Amino acid sequence: MKFKIKDMDIATGGTLIVLINKSDAAKYDLHAMDRVKLTKGRYSETALIDIGESEKAVPPGIIGLFEEVMHSLKAKSKETVHMRLARKPLSVQFIKKKLDGKTLNKNEIDQIVWDIVHNKLNDVELTYFVSACYTNVVTLKETVLLTKAMAECGDMLKINDYPVMDKHCIGGVAGNRTTMILVPIIAAAGLKIPKTSSRSITSPAGTADTMEVLTNVSIPIKKMKSLIEEINGCMVWGGALNLAPSDDKIIKVERPLAIDAESQLLASIMAKKHSVSSTHILIDIPIGKGAKIESREEALNLKERFEQIGQALKKHIKVIITDGSQPIGNGIGPALEARDVLWILKGDQNQPQDLKQKSVLMAGYMLELAGKSKPGFGYKSALGILESGAAYKKMKEIIKKQGGKNNIKPEDIKLGRYTYKHKASKAGRVAQIDNRIISRIARVAGAPKDKEAGIYLFKHKKHKVKKGEILFTLYAESKEKLRNAIAGLKTQDPYIIK
Amino acid sequence: MKFKIKDMDIATGGTLIVLINKSDAAKYDLHAMDRVKLTKGRYSETALIDIGESEKAVPPGIIGLFEEVMHSLKAKSKETVHMRLARKPLSVQFIKKKLDGKTLNKNEIDQIVWDIVHNKLNDVELTYFVSACYTNVVTLKETVLLTKAMAECGDMLKINDYPVMDKHCIGGVAGNRTTMILVPIIAAAGLKIPKTSSRSITSPAGTADTMEVLTNVSIPIKKMKSLIEEINGCMVWGGALNLAPSDDKIIKVERPLAIDAESQLLASIMAKKHSVSSTHILIDIPIGKGAKIESREEALNLKERFEQIGQALKKHIKVIITDGSQPIGNGIGPALEARDVLWILKGDQNQPQDLKQKSVLMAGYMLELAGKSKPGFGYKSALGILESGAAYKKMKEIIKKQGGKNNIKPEDIKLGRYTYKHKASKAGRVAQIDNRIISRIARVAGAPKDKEAGIYLFKHKKHKVKKGEILFTLYAESKEKLRNAIAGLKTQDPYIIK
Repeated sequence: MKFKIKDMDIATGGTLIVLINKSDAAKYDLHAMDRVKLTKGRYSETALIDIGESEKAVPPGIIGLFEEVMHSLKAKSKETVHMRLARKPLSVQFIKKKLDGKTLNKNEIDQIVWDIVHNKLNDVELTYFVSACYTNVVTLKETVLLTKAMAECGDMLKINDYPVMDKHCIGGVAGNRTTMILVPIIAAAGLKIPKTSSRSITSPAGTADTMEVLTNVSIPIKKMKSLIEEINGCMVWGGALNLAPSDDKIIKVERPLAIDAESQLLASIMAKKHSVSSTHILIDIPIGKGAKIESREEALNLKERFEQIGQALKKHIKVIITDGSQPIGNGIGPALEARDVLWILKGDQNQPQDLKQKSVLMAGYMLELAGKSKPGFGYKSALGILESGAAYKKMKEIIKKQGGKNNIKPEDIKLGRYTYKHKASKAGRVAQIDNRIISRIARVAGAPKDKEAGIYLFKHKKHKVKKGEILFTLYAESKEKLRNAIAGLKTQDPYIIK
Repeated sequence: MKFKIKDMDIATGGTLIVLINKSDAAKYDLHAMDRVKLTKGRYSETALIDIGESEKAVPPGIIGLFEEVMHSLKAKSKETVHMRLARKPLSVQFIKKKLDGKTLNKNEIDQIVWDIVHNKLNDVELTYFVSACYTNVVTLKETVLLTKAMAECGDMLKINDYPVMDKHCIGGVAGNRTTMILVPIIAAAGLKIPKTSSRSITSPAGTADTMEVLTNVSIPIKKMKSLIEEINGCMVWGGALNLAPSDDKIIKVERPLAIDAESQLLASIMAKKHSVSSTHILIDIPIGKGAKIESREEALNLKERFEQIGQALKKHIKVIITDGSQPIGNGIGPALEARDVLWILKGDQNQPQDLKQKSVLMAGYMLELAGKSKPGFGYKSALGILESGAAYKKMKEIIKKQGGKNNIKPEDIKLGRYTYKHKASKAGRVAQIDNRIISRIARVAGAPKDKEAGIYLFKHKKHKVKKGEILFTLYAESKEKLRNAIAGLKTQDPYIIK
């Protein structure tokens, strides 16, 4: 089959696509998503067929090449290209095998992950893979193989030290910014902790968003390595690194149905840890209404799976189940959370005690896990490091080395100029603060895109309130967003007072 | 969000798509496949987001509209359009429900099918639905609801008569063109049979391809109705009609993994029957090596499912399991099969006895099913109608009324001018003829696109052959295709002689 090239002048940013007219599709018995091998002189490329209905896009005899394909073939408009049907990538049959409920071996899993990372699969094929892992049993061995394949398909940060510390939180609890307190404590204790974090997906702030209020978080992997060697710790945005890169592609097809395949979730978390050489990992599973995990049973099940996969990967894992029934800390949104963090590190009177306690507890468990503290003495050691000012000093060092300013004062952090004070409609005791509603309101107010937007809580669960007392303040960068957030409060109040 | 329109000058032929720059996507927190509502003056439309990586396709602030969206919004380049995030179609949550292994009710299934037919779902969402039906249990009730929803979402051919006959073959057997013999027999017996057929997907000929050698098969539904009223029968291409139109969209996402979800298959077959008002249906399940169904157990299971769904739909169904272990008839490929059919209808000495026997047997079962013949006497009646010439007369009537020529002679049917005689490499008895290999060779020779291409068999199973005796002749319309088919024979011989 010979075609004349038309430059479509569109980049897809991923999948390689060519467009042919529907009459050519019928003539050559080609279907949408069929793979074809294109050859022009000594260049060749495999791409997916898309079919144009009208002659406007491409008339018969013409093939429309999207930018990636133009580039790969060094093609120019009106040149001739030869096309033939190409084989499907090997992994397609392995995906079918998993969909049929069978167990995959190492070669099969490696091939699937390689094909995902190298854009060899189309969205439909990738969806079948996600779906197969969601509806069928994925064995522990498969999850381990998936984890390793995902890590090894991207960059790896090699750290020649032992132990290498890490932590992960399952999430869903507003304000829960423990990472930014425990990383300085652990690093100040002399342990390596190459912490990567994500930006928020559905919450008002991710650790990367919050850290970015204080310093640069887009750090190349080489620089990350030197930071770990020099100052033991860092807090960087994982998205700027090429660690376990299959994840983003998988998430893309999970989004439309809000699928969360447990095996994929485990593999994706552990792959990120594996790719930065972590050996000792603390996992926090908060439970409670509005958190990601709502029941204790679900949390215990997930804990067991983490412990199993940790053991299989020869990593030391400690899983803790914590109270996630209300926001932790007072600030919600990047700037407000960064301010809480600095207050805690400085020992300021404004520090939220709940976030401090939880962070010190977690840091303590990590010291024990690493053998730095004897069992039962971790909390005390961690508290000592925090209260001595060593953790604060370490934080300033991390901020500066990552490219931030010297000595940022919590009071200097800019907050949204439009504010609204939400007051109690009756007297009583706070019975509930719904994480999901709090997060949504903070997002409507602009967080995390508007770093200065968010919520500052004055009352937590079990606090007594008088009628008309301020429960929280809303911050926004624009009047309109503030108005939208206030309107949101009218429909659903995050506080229940009894 | 406001954007300036750019006309992308591309029609997708289905899904409504708009393209924005990746920096706008980040700014507004939009992701690929998110749905947005676009408004321009009094026109509005919902479309899916696609994200362009480079500024070449669309720079920030510009939205690229594909032709369907341009048209729907009556848009011109450089006009301004307002965009906001739209809700997902209702069916997305029902698809998730099915993926979680739950049972769907009528409203949920109707909504899914409606959204499929109206292009409201993207390929990923549709794939999750197919995958959910493939990996999870689909109850009989769900299959019935799916069948009705699929039929009712398209055109329906109402026939005010009883019974209305139909047949379906599961396929996979080369040359098995029974429809073109039994439809004239049934119609000549005075029964209505509004037969729709498909074109070949993976075989060397579908009934629609073969019938098209003799007459026009793209018949509008109104004309089909008048043919049934006037002459009782017709044989038309289902693809030209809007019957159960969700099917093609489902097949599109099944192709990449060659998925065949049984419940979908059943629903899709029965929906096509339901949409033409069929009340009495004969289902043929051929079994044997290389056929679609290879084991008796599988066939019996499928038979039971057909009987159950038939009963639930209040249709009279008879399922027969037949020998599909070798090609049936001598001709394989549209022209060669059409010639066999005419020879049988005329009672010519060249008629293939196996195809004649099977067709008469099936017609006989249908006469019994309709109550036209007493049990046990159908075969004799059908044979009588065939041998009296009444079926041939009916066939000529159907051919003419559908727009074909008068009195086509089987000898006048044009065959491929390039031929090759494949000879036995040793003496013995034919132990096996592989349907899959025969079909593939015929396709490589050009069938079904080249109507004159194909294979004509001289030997069937159990036939004695001498060394050097001709087993079959290959026909092709071009030297190159003939050469390719001959090359194919070198790798795999369809005949095993013992």
